[in-house]
Amino acid sequence: MSKTTPTDYEIHDLLKKRWSPRVFSEKPVSEAELKQLLEAGRWAASSNNLQPWRIIWGRKGDGVFKRIFDCLHDFNKQWADNASVLIVGAYKTHRDDGKENFHALHDLGLFMGNLSLQATTMNIALHQMAGIDPEKTIQTFSFPEGYHVATAVAVGYYGGEVDKLPENLQKMETKEVRERKPQSEWAFNGNFGG
Amino acid sequence: MSKTTPTDYEIHDLLKKRWSPRVFSEKPVSEAELKQLLEAGRWAASSNNLQPWRIIWGRKGDGVFKRIFDCLHDFNKQWADNASVLIVGAYKTHRDDGKENFHALHDLGLFMGNLSLQATTMNIALHQMAGIDPEKTIQTFSFPEGYHVATAVAVGYYGGEVDKLPENLQKMETKEVRERKPQSEWAFNGNFGG
Repeated sequence: MSKTTPTDYEIHDLLKKRWSPRVFSEKPVSEAELKQLLEAGRWAASSNNLQPWRIIWGRKGDGVFKRIFDCLHDFNKQWADNASVLIVGAYKTHRDDGKENFHALHDLGLFMGNLSLQATTMNIALHQMAGIDPEKTIQTFSFPEGYHVATAVAVGYYGGEVDKLPENLQKMETKEVRERKPQSEWAFNGNFGG
Repeated sequence: MSKTTPTDYEIHDLLKKRWSPRVFSEKPVSEAELKQLLEAGRWAASSNNLQPWRIIWGRKGDGVFKRIFDCLHDFNKQWADNASVLIVGAYKTHRDDGKENFHALHDLGLFMGNLSLQATTMNIALHQMAGIDPEKTIQTFSFPEGYHVATAVAVGYYGGEVDKLPENLQKMETKEVRERKPQSEWAFNGNFGG
């Protein structure tokens, strides 16, 4: 299924088409396709070109997929194994000179934005999740000091069967119209609040 | 000028074309065009669809542009008035239920990723800056409690004259090939470090 994006100003189709499903097609995302997605992220901007993003990925059937799955919060465990690939999004917290890189988390977002765009061009969907246990993930994947785990991402082709989801999630999945606050609530040509 | 993006895997042209100039064409970005950019950001994903991003923008010649400019770090003041538009990127630090929204800064990154893609489709360039004084910006634009200023963004059409820049910045501007770490340094199918 596709969703309607009721834009107030015209934007590129790739941005309108994107949404975050909890079911995916059975068609696997190949390792080569996954690397195309990561490559898109690779060329994102970052503060001082520090490229603070760090990625762990697993494809369904390899042991890594299951190890990532086990780090997710229970809510996400209801559906995340519908994905073909699971990704952990982490970042290096400090610069090489020892100063904190406050923008590392922001730049992980820029990375994921690029990933998302590339995915959409390939009819691949992402569902980004805040619901992952950072400490457990750091232990599970032997991160050294100085890294923080921020997100998980479920990746798969659009086109899953909604009835694979528990009933409480089917409703969200089939909602036809995407929703956002109008610009007037968050963009100001002057003081905050306009 | 355009730059070369030496990708290891094929990615969409819009992602290859993007880079972050410090000079821009004289052609102004209209208010309508700016709103198209913000609209692209509007439809980004965010944790629990909280849409934590908050934006202040000014166009060259309005008073707001100058007020944003005055909040930039000295390094960025060397070139940022080449832009047609200046944007402040801020975010709401907490959810409505009072819990901290750790992912707000990440989601501002997703917002800016969308903005960046839309801009590229319009031949508009962004230069995102970490170098802005958050406290000064919060005061200048009367942000209430509970918001944090993270970034500034210079916006303008590609195609500026490099000799508008101080000499120390001309070299960076005219470097032909973009550079990134290879995936093998930051993406792992298993434990951190591969």
